[in-house]
Amino acid sequence: MKALVYRGKEDVAVEDRPMPEIFAPGDAIVKMAKASICAQLRERTDLHILKGDMPYIPTGRVMGHEGLSTVTSIGSSVSRFKVGDRVIIMPITNCSTCAFCKRDIYSNCTTGGGMLGNKIDGTHAEYVRILYADTNLQLAPEGIDESGLVTVSDALPTAFECGVSNGKVQPGSTVAIVGAGPVGLATLMIAQLYSPMTIIVIDKDENRLDTAKSLGATHTLVPGPNTVEKVLEITKGVGVDTAIEVVGMPATFELCQEITGVGGTIANVGVHGSKVDLHMEKLWNKGITIATSCVDGVSTPTVLKLVESGKIDPRPLISHIFKFLEIT
Amino acid sequence: MKALVYRGKEDVAVEDRPMPEIFAPGDAIVKMAKASICAQLRERTDLHILKGDMPYIPTGRVMGHEGLSTVTSIGSSVSRFKVGDRVIIMPITNCSTCAFCKRDIYSNCTTGGGMLGNKIDGTHAEYVRILYADTNLQLAPEGIDESGLVTVSDALPTAFECGVSNGKVQPGSTVAIVGAGPVGLATLMIAQLYSPMTIIVIDKDENRLDTAKSLGATHTLVPGPNTVEKVLEITKGVGVDTAIEVVGMPATFELCQEITGVGGTIANVGVHGSKVDLHMEKLWNKGITIATSCVDGVSTPTVLKLVESGKIDPRPLISHIFKFLEIT
Amino acid sequence: MKALVYRGKEDVAVEDRPMPEIFAPGDAIVKMAKASICAQLRERTDLHILKGDMPYIPTGRVMGHEGLSTVTSIGSSVSRFKVGDRVIIMPITNCSTCAFCKRDIYSNCTTGGGMLGNKIDGTHAEYVRILYADTNLQLAPEGIDESGLVTVSDALPTAFECGVSNGKVQPGSTVAIVGAGPVGLATLMIAQLYSPMTIIVIDKDENRLDTAKSLGATHTLVPGPNTVEKVLEITKGVGVDTAIEVVGMPATFELCQEITGVGGTIANVGVHGSKVDLHMEKLWNKGITIATSCVDGVSTPTVLKLVESGKIDPRPLISHIFKFLEIT
Amino acid sequence: MKALVYRGKEDVAVEDRPMPEIFAPGDAIVKMAKASICAQLRERTDLHILKGDMPYIPTGRVMGHEGLSTVTSIGSSVSRFKVGDRVIIMPITNCSTCAFCKRDIYSNCTTGGGMLGNKIDGTHAEYVRILYADTNLQLAPEGIDESGLVTVSDALPTAFECGVSNGKVQPGSTVAIVGAGPVGLATLMIAQLYSPMTIIVIDKDENRLDTAKSLGATHTLVPGPNTVEKVLEITKGVGVDTAIEVVGMPATFELCQEITGVGGTIANVGVHGSKVDLHMEKLWNKGITIATSCVDGVSTPTVLKLVESGKIDPRPLISHIFKFLEIT
Repeated sequence: MKALVYRGKEDVAVEDRPMPEIFAPGDAIVKMAKASICAQLRERTDLHILKGDMPYIPTGRVMGHEGLSTVTSIGSSVSRFKVGDRVIIMPITNCSTCAFCKRDIYSNCTTGGGMLGNKIDGTHAEYVRILYADTNLQLAPEGIDESGLVTVSDALPTAFECGVSNGKVQPGSTVAIVGAGPVGLATLMIAQLYSPMTIIVIDKDENRLDTAKSLGATHTLVPGPNTVEKVLEITKGVGVDTAIEVVGMPATFELCQEITGVGGTIANVGVHGSKVDLHMEKLWNKGITIATSCVDGVSTPTVLKLVESGKIDPRPLISHIFKFLEIT
Repeated sequence: MKALVYRGKEDVAVEDRPMPEIFAPGDAIVKMAKASICAQLRERTDLHILKGDMPYIPTGRVMGHEGLSTVTSIGSSVSRFKVGDRVIIMPITNCSTCAFCKRDIYSNCTTGGGMLGNKIDGTHAEYVRILYADTNLQLAPEGIDESGLVTVSDALPTAFECGVSNGKVQPGSTVAIVGAGPVGLATLMIAQLYSPMTIIVIDKDENRLDTAKSLGATHTLVPGPNTVEKVLEITKGVGVDTAIEVVGMPATFELCQEITGVGGTIANVGVHGSKVDLHMEKLWNKGITIATSCVDGVSTPTVLKLVESGKIDPRPLISHIFKFLEIT
Repeated sequence: MKALVYRGKEDVAVEDRPMPEIFAPGDAIVKMAKASICAQLRERTDLHILKGDMPYIPTGRVMGHEGLSTVTSIGSSVSRFKVGDRVIIMPITNCSTCAFCKRDIYSNCTTGGGMLGNKIDGTHAEYVRILYADTNLQLAPEGIDESGLVTVSDALPTAFECGVSNGKVQPGSTVAIVGAGPVGLATLMIAQLYSPMTIIVIDKDENRLDTAKSLGATHTLVPGPNTVEKVLEITKGVGVDTAIEVVGMPATFELCQEITGVGGTIANVGVHGSKVDLHMEKLWNKGITIATSCVDGVSTPTVLKLVESGKIDPRPLISHIFKFLEIT
Repeated sequence: MKALVYRGKEDVAVEDRPMPEIFAPGDAIVKMAKASICAQLRERTDLHILKGDMPYIPTGRVMGHEGLSTVTSIGSSVSRFKVGDRVIIMPITNCSTCAFCKRDIYSNCTTGGGMLGNKIDGTHAEYVRILYADTNLQLAPEGIDESGLVTVSDALPTAFECGVSNGKVQPGSTVAIVGAGPVGLATLMIAQLYSPMTIIVIDKDENRLDTAKSLGATHTLVPGPNTVEKVLEITKGVGVDTAIEVVGMPATFELCQEITGVGGTIANVGVHGSKVDLHMEKLWNKGITIATSCVDGVSTPTVLKLVESGKIDPRPLISHIFKFLEIT
């Protein structure tokens, strides 16, 4: 079969690979649907892998950790899925039984899984082996746009968990989202589920900001020398309640520190490749919370229900992902 | 009256000052008890003021923001206290009615109060004006050691709120306390209220570590090249659940980052004078929470009950404060 | 001045009363705006007082505990308001300094306040004395429909705190609101701030249910022998995540028990006059939380922001209140 | 093999049963250690089964749902345990993958498990089949008293989760535990991990109350006409912050309602066989939370650490269980 393989910093290629096989009783083999191969190449992980920000990814690894697929075979202990089921792949592939899984920190599962396209071969391939299939697949609902379902795999849960939940977005609150790539826009969508009063989206790209406006941002800003001043003006001098970093760069993380008000929260979504300055001399007495996390998939059932019921329409996200990829 | 006045970086002196007077109906004037003057000079705030870490403190300000005292006069709207009441001073002197107070972030009260010895004259004086007395004094219980009560003013609530609550210390968890000055030791005392399994105290001073041992630390470490390794050894390779920074230096804050495990919390208690490195390239996917705050006094009624009932014995803390001051 | 006075069970009358005067430095006297007198007569409190469900209300008490007004005089310690300010009255009139206020349970304030129209004369009068004015008034924003602002006083915060927050409504969750009077409809509005997937409104009155539909209910039901069955059908057999009781009767509270699923929450908003059956033989192992509370006003600043920004439009609520009163 | 079988209301007998066999790849067969057979017969579940309070238990069922055992065979997908491991049995036997398991409400697992001795044959037998063994067994630490480890199976986690966590016991708080059988005493032990100031234990049996005193109760009461009055006296008129019901009777549940103060919590641990009166006419505005739950085992890893480290000594609990059984 064909697979997209990481061969080192800024070097990927499609290679021929042997078909994956079932090793453990909990495994399933799934056949990827077309749409998902491209959708993965986004700001958060894959591009960082390409840049070499995640040096622990071995060369030769099949990339990708999300997508829509169909079950083609199952191991003897798989009980929730059968051959032919159309399924959404969750990005973590955790074991459910180790100490971290028991604490719902599935992304740091130690005994088994590991992130697809990272410790095990990923989803940018025709067929993929899914560990612990009963835990890590979600039955795809019928009648929903297929490409939209791909965002249920990773982009929307990441936005929900790492951005909006960690950021404690609340009715009436003020939110800044720094970075308007696909996951930034997913964050914008999810944030609105909690009815914040103000959502300021900050990005260098005016086209992305236009999309953000159309998706519900109340204010958009191109970062510049007076960005902090403008955010303070919008928030009547108090700063935002929640700043969500969806870029993964020192400058954007520092911007979050400057615009977050007393008692506020900085939620980090971006994948970082280097250390950042933390201005403790300004923050020590401001009652600030900073939260980091990788997606654990705890919000996936909720996201799926919201997509099914039409509360979230992931289609604009998908078209934006494609636009983003063309630019890249 | 006599008062200890801040005259600039590393320059304080006792000066003659006019007696404070009641300006607002909610004010009270209190006469300080002797013990409290010295007890303030601890690692967290006053020493930082002396070092010039808080450049917004004006010269000429009477220092100090905690202590035990007796009410000598009250304004017309004070209803909870009368002349002669022995009272504990809360360190914030907040208004209770501004937007931050309504959110229980009393330390950032905007419309009225402000930290004693900071925006208004403090407690290192014979008499002090207390704003919003009904909110900011606590009736001192009888029959309790007087010097111990001083720790109810600031050290114990700071340890409780900024360290232990923000740090989410839980039964069975592992805790590292970095810094064993008086507030570090107060943190050690308060942490034990939640029955963590392991408490590692880290400090350069072996004498302080001995005190920490006697107050319940399960492990003590002098920081050195293999401190991180030792903490990992103690925690079976996973790092601590909670690291509490009670120093206010870049090196100690970075140490906290290195020893905190997946899903853990770094609670900052130290007053910082400069920025620190935050290793987001290591922390972004570890599910870490970092919390900063200044004491708000929300734990003061609880602390007072625990001291009254003997669950907390603040006396060793006091003797350690004196020892600390003699060294300084 | 004229005032609406409670004279005993099912007996109220307009009487002449002396003008209220300032007693304490924190008091304010406010002149009521017309709209508010009627708006109070709703399902929650006033009607229960009339029915004699709150036997501790003394005869001779001026009723009412909410409304929009203008400050006509202030005591010496009032600092946040001045004569002429247009203000929203919060329903609790708490002291901010007692043990319950310090815990944000303002509704049970012990040392001072008390519910207007209950322990002290209320708002169904031309002029009202407001205790602790700095804490218990909110500056009314300009440019907002006056009658809508009345709902910020009590109906919307009650719905928010007692119903939606206590009920832990979440994105994607399923909610049943039992009772579609004005506070029930306010609950329906506030619940939608959290984007639940399903909101089932249950009431005997078809007109109210029509209003509920127009305000966002996904399903409406007239209670009958198969109500439980229908709710289970809508929720695919699992019951609702949140049931909110906004009636105050044994039958409606029992209905909530029957329709709440495993791990769900029953939030009580209704004022009850008698005991109810709690089916512990069915609930003991279902992981149910039942929460009671009176409005504390902690959500009032948020509600005000949401009304100001247009996220909540309280006008349909007001017209429904009038309709409700005509029926009564 | 021999097994203790439920044959109907108040009728159990030891019968010969075929050896259990592995059906699913995730199963394990374990050989029970002697101590555990008796330890199950306690106030919470087994006695209620005997009384017929759980009519859904089929006749012919092998009773028991906790214990210490040794693995004798494993299915093909079991990866965390091997033959010969000494293991603690968790009482729920959940699947980890259904909707309730994903929400950590393991006790209501729908797709697979079910409570041992309830939907499937239990632990009062020589050998037991354990479903989903990777999830539902805990490796028993060495060097710990064997009989004490049995309490880690059910009594201590039940006390932790249903009683103390649900009851939100906090440092300095006041707690009443109604019922001093083995689980009541376990609750008393676990509650002290959070350093409440006052723990009032209420039981008819003076011997049990003596045990409670020796295990840390600050006050003990035999229930009588003035119990409420006495609790109010102990709590200075405000009632307790947390009342924990560990009996499962209407009278004890009502007592909890009467002694719980404003803003307090009633945590139910007892297994109830009939409805109870809930005095909503008194509780509606008191800010009360009532929580029911069955043990989910989420605290088991913590409990195990606390027992291992000596923070909890379960031995007095065991001797009390035996005493209790002799009396019964």
